[in-house]
Amino acid sequence: MDMKAETTVMNGAESLVQTLVDAGIDTCFSNPGTSEMHFVAATDKIAGMRPILCLFEGVVTGAADGYGRMLRKPAASLLHLGPGLANGLANLHNARRAGTPMLNIVGDHATYHSQYDAPLNSDIVGFAQPVSAWIQRSANAEEVAGDAARAVSESLAGGGQIATLILPADTAWNESDGPASMPPVPERVTVSGARVDAVAAALMNGKKTVILISADALYGEALNNAGRIAQASGARLMCPTHPSRRQRGAGIVPIEPLPYFAEGIVAELERVEQLVLIGAKSPVSFFAYPGKPSWLTPEGCDTLTLAEREEDIEHALSDLADALGVGLATPPRAELQTTLPALSDKLDQFTLGQVIAHYLPENAIISDESNTSGIGPALSTLTAAPHDFLAVTGGSIGRGLPVATGAAVACPDRKVVCLHGDGGAMYTMQSLWTQAREELDVTTVIFASKSYAILNIEYDRVGVGAPGPNAFSQLDLRNPELDWVKIAHGMGVEASCATTLAEFSAQFEDAMNRKGPRLIEVLI
Amino acid sequence: MDMKAETTVMNGAESLVQTLVDAGIDTCFSNPGTSEMHFVAATDKIAGMRPILCLFEGVVTGAADGYGRMLRKPAASLLHLGPGLANGLANLHNARRAGTPMLNIVGDHATYHSQYDAPLNSDIVGFAQPVSAWIQRSANAEEVAGDAARAVSESLAGGGQIATLILPADTAWNESDGPASMPPVPERVTVSGARVDAVAAALMNGKKTVILISADALYGEALNNAGRIAQASGARLMCPTHPSRRQRGAGIVPIEPLPYFAEGIVAELERVEQLVLIGAKSPVSFFAYPGKPSWLTPEGCDTLTLAEREEDIEHALSDLADALGVGLATPPRAELQTTLPALSDKLDQFTLGQVIAHYLPENAIISDESNTSGIGPALSTLTAAPHDFLAVTGGSIGRGLPVATGAAVACPDRKVVCLHGDGGAMYTMQSLWTQAREELDVTTVIFASKSYAILNIEYDRVGVGAPGPNAFSQLDLRNPELDWVKIAHGMGVEASCATTLAEFSAQFEDAMNRKGPRLIEVLI
Repeated sequence: MDMKAETTVMNGAESLVQTLVDAGIDTCFSNPGTSEMHFVAATDKIAGMRPILCLFEGVVTGAADGYGRMLRKPAASLLHLGPGLANGLANLHNARRAGTPMLNIVGDHATYHSQYDAPLNSDIVGFAQPVSAWIQRSANAEEVAGDAARAVSESLAGGGQIATLILPADTAWNESDGPASMPPVPERVTVSGARVDAVAAALMNGKKTVILISADALYGEALNNAGRIAQASGARLMCPTHPSRRQRGAGIVPIEPLPYFAEGIVAELERVEQLVLIGAKSPVSFFAYPGKPSWLTPEGCDTLTLAEREEDIEHALSDLADALGVGLATPPRAELQTTLPALSDKLDQFTLGQVIAHYLPENAIISDESNTSGIGPALSTLTAAPHDFLAVTGGSIGRGLPVATGAAVACPDRKVVCLHGDGGAMYTMQSLWTQAREELDVTTVIFASKSYAILNIEYDRVGVGAPGPNAFSQLDLRNPELDWVKIAHGMGVEASCATTLAEFSAQFEDAMNRKGPRLIEVLI
Repeated sequence: MDMKAETTVMNGAESLVQTLVDAGIDTCFSNPGTSEMHFVAATDKIAGMRPILCLFEGVVTGAADGYGRMLRKPAASLLHLGPGLANGLANLHNARRAGTPMLNIVGDHATYHSQYDAPLNSDIVGFAQPVSAWIQRSANAEEVAGDAARAVSESLAGGGQIATLILPADTAWNESDGPASMPPVPERVTVSGARVDAVAAALMNGKKTVILISADALYGEALNNAGRIAQASGARLMCPTHPSRRQRGAGIVPIEPLPYFAEGIVAELERVEQLVLIGAKSPVSFFAYPGKPSWLTPEGCDTLTLAEREEDIEHALSDLADALGVGLATPPRAELQTTLPALSDKLDQFTLGQVIAHYLPENAIISDESNTSGIGPALSTLTAAPHDFLAVTGGSIGRGLPVATGAAVACPDRKVVCLHGDGGAMYTMQSLWTQAREELDVTTVIFASKSYAILNIEYDRVGVGAPGPNAFSQLDLRNPELDWVKIAHGMGVEASCATTLAEFSAQFEDAMNRKGPRLIEVLI
């Protein structure tokens, strides 16, 4: 027997895991099946990869989204053939819109087995295409490591995008040539001095201006520079309604989010003469409505783009601050201000929001999918302790719980607060089980409106009159009433229900003072 | 005001619903969003459409699959844009493999709105392609009704396939020309007399023969003819491991299913000289394994195809029975035989299976996703009261609960029994809520193995040794333990847990004697 071979030969799956670990990818959200068993085995043979089991693939991809939003590097998502990928697609859609670095590993039948069209055979590339910036199916075990290294690099391109690597079972179990090292990440396009100067000049032309920032401009030094620039130029600093990751709260540059509804955006942008886009797109209506506009930039308003999302936003903002001579100025900062309401006050989203803002610990992460119940908490937390705020970027509900899960894995020393509507939470409630298993520090607040509350509003807005019984039956979540305390207990998460503000306040304060997963259902 | 217009003009959504109702499509499994609000409103304006809300799209499509398997006509599935369709794809994959007639209505942004690439914009056709036999995006309100009529017709082609109609919001809200009538369903190919004669001759040539039947050959008069033919020719009558819909039990022609694992199929087919395929494909391994075969027809075995799944199987079997002169013979029938075990016996899948078989009422429907716990119940129920048996056709877990839900909607006078592993049940447990809301007569038995039991077996089979801690963590569902009684209660379904055979027997007997949704968790 060849001793050297015995000690050094890796199969394709092992070469893949070693390549990922070498590239700094040390976390894998996993929902495997038979065709991924060699990858699963490799997580024991190769040191340094932490697998985290999720009991549904929408949790896998949503958690990887939350993880990637916080760390700006991908976790691996391990998915079982086409249907496993399919179950993760909705949250991949959200991640694509968020510009999150993501790396999907999708197992497939052995290369020679596909021709037999066994029951699980499907068009994996077809499923992957609408959400992936890069797709590769490994041809053999020798190429797996190189494909994986390329996948990591591609996932980081342009600040973050989705790379999907399809791994036929035999490319995982056959002998490989060992790990590969990561090729350089494609460099982000540097914004030219001419573009910086043009924007700098425009900002000083006296026109009524909105600077709309998104992506990497929403946190860190880039946000500080955006604040300095807005302050120096007198422009209003705004961001999209649903940011991927936004820093907010005391000590952070304040940004006004665009409202959700088109008419709200139109009102906010009225008489604006100039729109400067930094990592953001021109505002459009979330949906179309009969007789309402889709394109929301006011007529006659000039639009200038400093940087596209994929370009080097951080440097562009630094250059622009320097061009305006404010690179060292103190940026505007929100001041800490929270007010605890009287505990005898009515329980509504505004009093709830005040309680949440008051007890929110420093450096928390809010994963928000509170939709119609979210205005109160969003307003109050603007001046709460500093925190990150992660929103539904692609409009596909059911990402709040898994994104919270992934963010908690990424940042184990930070409290994660998940604010969620009951309708959306039903999509990916399996997240709670992973939170319990991994003892993640997530407090979930379920706003139990007992309806698709947003759809009641939308039904009205599309102009079809009052809902009849059949329409009502498609918007209402009573009959039977969901009991989130029981659902959470069924998945091993401590839970309680609050029917008064005093109850909510006591439960939320308690949750903020302890670690570990916790759910509070609020009847609102 | 033009009185005629006031009373007769329909918008596109109304013309669509009226067209569906006129074509006999009277049930819609629904998970709508803003872009589908005009369809939702139309279910009140147009009489005859029953909307059934499901709190996740995997339930929508799985329920439509169960409904279509039983009634051989489609329900409508109402889905919200690309991500809503994406959440339903895994069960559409199963439905495609089942040959179920399915009709997806996928709302989309208004035609003029797509150019703005709002957050929910995505490549809906791309998502639909891997599972759909027919896809159409309506261009305007006038064409919606015609497109819908064509969609119904296409969904019925070849015995059943998936038609996806994409409905931009403005084609739903603009004025239409009213409903359209359904074009003729494309006729199924009639099997030629020459093919029938060739198979008839082969069946009498004295070779050791297996007749492998699937699809429409698995129930009704087609199954009787298959039984007559097997009996007359001495051939063995078999069916795939996971049939779409199969009649079994007392008074029904007995069929032997192919085993799940490749080596089991190889053993069963050893020395078979002739394989006759009727609506079935040649047997192949479900997965590939190192060193194990994928193609399972024995070497030297002749394969003859009487009819492909899409062809007219029923007539082909009738013609073949006549050609063999047995068209009026009494087909072989299973005899009723159930044995109640001693209640002090050990609780395992075999004693459980005996209890289930004993109490199963006549004409029940079993939706099976019991996987590793399913052998006992499958054996015992072979001679239970006659019933239909619906299996996981595409290998994508999480279809047992929704298929049971849809079957119960389709057949309100029949008891539905859903046998389900705990791992798979986590995927689409939202089905329980719809069962409670619609008061469906479904008894769900959860086999709580507390692990992905099949994967423990598969891990062993792929030859990677014993699972280490990381691998084990991806196969094991303990820590925390799922509590299905709490989960079911949280969604309004009566539930209990059985830890002994006596407990299970009492609970299952009680469930069979009452109507309405019920869940029994069995610790096995």
